[in-house]
Amino acid sequence: MSEAVSTIEGYYSLHLLYSVDWSAFKVLDEGEKDALLEELQTFLKEQEEVHLNKEGDYAFYNIMGHKADLLFWFLRNTPEELINLELAISKLGIGDFLIPTYSYVSIIEMSSYLGGNKTAEEMLKIPHVQSRLFPTLEKSKYICFYPMDKKRDLDDNWYMLPMDERKKLMRDHGMIGRQYAGKIKQFISGSQGLDKYEWGVTLLSDDMLEFKKIIYEMRFDEASARYGVFGDFYVGGLISADGLADYFK
Amino acid sequence: MSEAVSTIEGYYSLHLLYSVDWSAFKVLDEGEKDALLEELQTFLKEQEEVHLNKEGDYAFYNIMGHKADLLFWFLRNTPEELINLELAISKLGIGDFLIPTYSYVSIIEMSSYLGGNKTAEEMLKIPHVQSRLFPTLEKSKYICFYPMDKKRDLDDNWYMLPMDERKKLMRDHGMIGRQYAGKIKQFISGSQGLDKYEWGVTLLSDDMLEFKKIIYEMRFDEASARYGVFGDFYVGGLISADGLADYFK
Amino acid sequence: MSEAVSTIEGYYSLHLLYSVDWSAFKVLDEGEKDALLEELQTFLKEQEEVHLNKEGDYAFYNIMGHKADLLFWFLRNTPEELINLELAISKLGIGDFLIPTYSYVSIIEMSSYLGGNKTAEEMLKIPHVQSRLFPTLEKSKYICFYPMDKKRDLDDNWYMLPMDERKKLMRDHGMIGRQYAGKIKQFISGSQGLDKYEWGVTLLSDDMLEFKKIIYEMRFDEASARYGVFGDFYVGGLISADGLADYFK
Amino acid sequence: MSEAVSTIEGYYSLHLLYSVDWSAFKVLDEGEKDALLEELQTFLKEQEEVHLNKEGDYAFYNIMGHKADLLFWFLRNTPEELINLELAISKLGIGDFLIPTYSYVSIIEMSSYLGGNKTAEEMLKIPHVQSRLFPTLEKSKYICFYPMDKKRDLDDNWYMLPMDERKKLMRDHGMIGRQYAGKIKQFISGSQGLDKYEWGVTLLSDDMLEFKKIIYEMRFDEASARYGVFGDFYVGGLISADGLADYFK
Amino acid sequence: MSEAVSTIEGYYSLHLLYSVDWSAFKVLDEGEKDALLEELQTFLKEQEEVHLNKEGDYAFYNIMGHKADLLFWFLRNTPEELINLELAISKLGIGDFLIPTYSYVSIIEMSSYLGGNKTAEEMLKIPHVQSRLFPTLEKSKYICFYPMDKKRDLDDNWYMLPMDERKKLMRDHGMIGRQYAGKIKQFISGSQGLDKYEWGVTLLSDDMLEFKKIIYEMRFDEASARYGVFGDFYVGGLISADGLADYFK
Repeated sequence: MSEAVSTIEGYYSLHLLYSVDWSAFKVLDEGEKDALLEELQTFLKEQEEVHLNKEGDYAFYNIMGHKADLLFWFLRNTPEELINLELAISKLGIGDFLIPTYSYVSIIEMSSYLGGNKTAEEMLKIPHVQSRLFPTLEKSKYICFYPMDKKRDLDDNWYMLPMDERKKLMRDHGMIGRQYAGKIKQFISGSQGLDKYEWGVTLLSDDMLEFKKIIYEMRFDEASARYGVFGDFYVGGLISADGLADYFK
Repeated sequence: MSEAVSTIEGYYSLHLLYSVDWSAFKVLDEGEKDALLEELQTFLKEQEEVHLNKEGDYAFYNIMGHKADLLFWFLRNTPEELINLELAISKLGIGDFLIPTYSYVSIIEMSSYLGGNKTAEEMLKIPHVQSRLFPTLEKSKYICFYPMDKKRDLDDNWYMLPMDERKKLMRDHGMIGRQYAGKIKQFISGSQGLDKYEWGVTLLSDDMLEFKKIIYEMRFDEASARYGVFGDFYVGGLISADGLADYFK
Repeated sequence: MSEAVSTIEGYYSLHLLYSVDWSAFKVLDEGEKDALLEELQTFLKEQEEVHLNKEGDYAFYNIMGHKADLLFWFLRNTPEELINLELAISKLGIGDFLIPTYSYVSIIEMSSYLGGNKTAEEMLKIPHVQSRLFPTLEKSKYICFYPMDKKRDLDDNWYMLPMDERKKLMRDHGMIGRQYAGKIKQFISGSQGLDKYEWGVTLLSDDMLEFKKIIYEMRFDEASARYGVFGDFYVGGLISADGLADYFK
Repeated sequence: MSEAVSTIEGYYSLHLLYSVDWSAFKVLDEGEKDALLEELQTFLKEQEEVHLNKEGDYAFYNIMGHKADLLFWFLRNTPEELINLELAISKLGIGDFLIPTYSYVSIIEMSSYLGGNKTAEEMLKIPHVQSRLFPTLEKSKYICFYPMDKKRDLDDNWYMLPMDERKKLMRDHGMIGRQYAGKIKQFISGSQGLDKYEWGVTLLSDDMLEFKKIIYEMRFDEASARYGVFGDFYVGGLISADGLADYFK
Repeated sequence: MSEAVSTIEGYYSLHLLYSVDWSAFKVLDEGEKDALLEELQTFLKEQEEVHLNKEGDYAFYNIMGHKADLLFWFLRNTPEELINLELAISKLGIGDFLIPTYSYVSIIEMSSYLGGNKTAEEMLKIPHVQSRLFPTLEKSKYICFYPMDKKRDLDDNWYMLPMDERKKLMRDHGMIGRQYAGKIKQFISGSQGLDKYEWGVTLLSDDMLEFKKIIYEMRFDEASARYGVFGDFYVGGLISADGLADYFK
């Protein structure tokens, strides 16, 4: 009966998207704003330490358009850490001016579609597997995040395909991805049982045009063309430690 | 004509999901906060007594992401008790800071797909049936709740399948579930005529990764692959009596 | 070409669903609350008189879950009366604390699928037809209201079926309904041209479990299984004249 | 390739739907309310003059249910006039208490499905064509407005049908409409390129039951049964100049 | 496997749609309003300079109906400029009265469906290609903006069509567009990987009726009829520098 491909999991992942309530924020006097930003700065420095200690990671981006203003992306070894980070943001002073608009709970994963016959234990010892499951994030200029499903619609039902056909489709799909190595860092997290969509894709790049190119090219690939169902796309630019004050002015 | 499989029902069930209005809550002074938390603490102690007296049960979890902050799950013998519990939360002091975001009305059920030829009365005398219909909930570290339908879409119409085929599919489906015995506690509640989705699934576990594993594996099973329609997934961590003050600080 | 089955219409019908803004209501002092409740009490007494005089009817229920807190259901001989009732609620003092969440405009109807060859005029003289089109509502303990459509989706298109097939399907469907006579009172109202869904179904019963049973059983009947499209389900408990003060405290 | 049937256009059309913020409005003192109503009265008198001068037209109705409280429908020769009318409502004093809930931008149109081989210029000289494209609205007791599409779904794709089949279907459809002449005034406006749905249908009648009858009968006609996609239905009662004060009290 | 047609990209594009909070704006005194408008005027003058220097472009329109009141459309060479423009609007004084309702992130593109065998580099040297990718916008009286997808639904799957068939369909489609040359300026921007829909279409014209005509005619063309999926349509009138004060009064 069931013939799910096996997966190996790494970090727990939480994407948190917020809109800024600018009209309320602007009413604050400069001293109050400074205090809030200093506190947020401290929070981000703690994240940076976690990153340096390789105990997890984070990303902080300015999202374009009306869907959100800010994206925090957190990677950690346990769900507790993520639960506490979300709660911590609510309790930050700046949290009073952040309106949650979307979120995504998942776990970084690697499926064995592309792997060979190794066991999960053996796989986890391979350095490049380790670094994909427990990644260290670069401070790329741009981010692109979107959730997705595999379609289950009458004749277009991914989960009713024989394993071999899925393997072939995923290999072709992976081939396209490889052409963008060096231009785009790609992170796949699975969310079956954790969120409405089944996977989250997070891309980092120093050239926003590359996001359009890879997604456009992949759309003609059968794995996406017939079986891909895509949620919203969130794209934006890095907010560096130095840029934080500029952002909030 | 109609050939619905028979079901046996247990507790009435109500899932209530709320967001916390943190910016309003933070404005309270410490004394006011303490009073609200003490009142909530009392409310939860009453739930704990119901649990100990086996007159029903409850669960209280911190939900990850923007969809909700808190989940109350109540099980009772009558709808009146559930109606009154929902009203009671609205009237708690803390209720002023809780914004309802989702809810789910259902009744714990067992279908005879997996049973033999016993009548409902005979079934209800079997201890393990009793304990499934009138469960006692463990304080597991994590919860996963999602509503679901069986599809009725042209050729993929669960309700047009012959009984035998549905039985076979549900048995295969149940086989997967059994492999997770000991790791996950699973509660099925039916909501035909009570809510928009047809079933609610509530999972409890001490390892969040197990939620991903069971749902992923089941998705390749024909009962889910062809016929499952899933709503949002709500996952979160237990708020213990001790952790309540920490949560609200 | 067109072969619509003929229908006979009775009362105009309006379902109004509201959430209560509890945090604003609680701020009122006791005197203000009493005044609002007295005014609402008077409004409900007027409804009770209309009921006793058989000039229409009403129902007032406490809805479970986040979708609504209160349901007013009004039946009248003219649309003007319904328009004025909706406006009257807005202008009640308590109206300031009621947030409209859903509504449904329809007309109680009987289709001739189940009737013989009598004309509408002849039908209207039959007492049990009269009492179905211009019903007198019992104060049942529970209500279940949901809107629905007949599907028009490629091969599953109710409106493209020959009259004879629709007749057969509706007769089978009606058979199930009859088994619940005495347990459930069922009211069908049509809303083609009046609201987004095509029919509203309102069920009254003293046992909430019966709602689940009838809807579950019907779902396997072809009229529902292939052709039914269901909206949200609103269930709740009666608010009696005596219970009103308790509800608002 | 393309074989769109030709259309002739008349007035530009704008439907504006608003909810009234009653709890804010009630806080005003009587003098303030009177001033707002007088200003609105003046605005409506200007519309009445436009109607009398046949420079356009308007309708003003009280909509039933939660979707909206008020409907303004404006017909004019130019988009500028409609843009200015919408802006004018925002700037009325009463505008502060009106929350936009829906709107519809379109142009009154006549398609040549039902016409012969005349050119648009020739058509426009025919008086009954002129009066359909540049209608004068009666103050009917009830309105029914809904937007709609023609379906483009696999085998049910209106826009892939040969012209002859579309012509036949539209003629059958029109036959039903004609049976309601004298009971219902029907206005068709096209919104390709102007709004999400493709057509708006606005019906005026002194008997609300007729809305149900015509839409129900048409639903069995193939043009609707297979190809009709319907949005929300907005129905309500006329607010006469005299009734305005009563409405706002 | 994949056979995506190649595209060439020009300006980065950002559509920002806002509703005006009129009731809050009206509370301001005249001096405050003047200050806000002067600041907005300055912001628009900066945009006009960018336009004159051909370093990008902008459009500023009054949108009809409830979906939005104002549309800012920005074209720039880099994403940073767009990110900063969005942030700048939030920080304008008038920004406190603007509620974001929709947005669209994309890049002006030209696909080689209509081109020959030239490379991207060669294409970019052709003046009319340059002016399409880096357009200079006219101050047309009306705008029409809508996002769209190509369908991927069972047998109607654009991305599974052979390249030749897509080419043929796009050429037929383009033929219709050419008939509107001189009446309508058409701008195509791609948003794969950047936003939920795949393309944005922005039309400028001095005659609003032309929007209806082109979209209606195109809907019968197979590329749209079978494969087009359309989002909301936003239409409106130009707000000239002189008209700004009138708009806000």
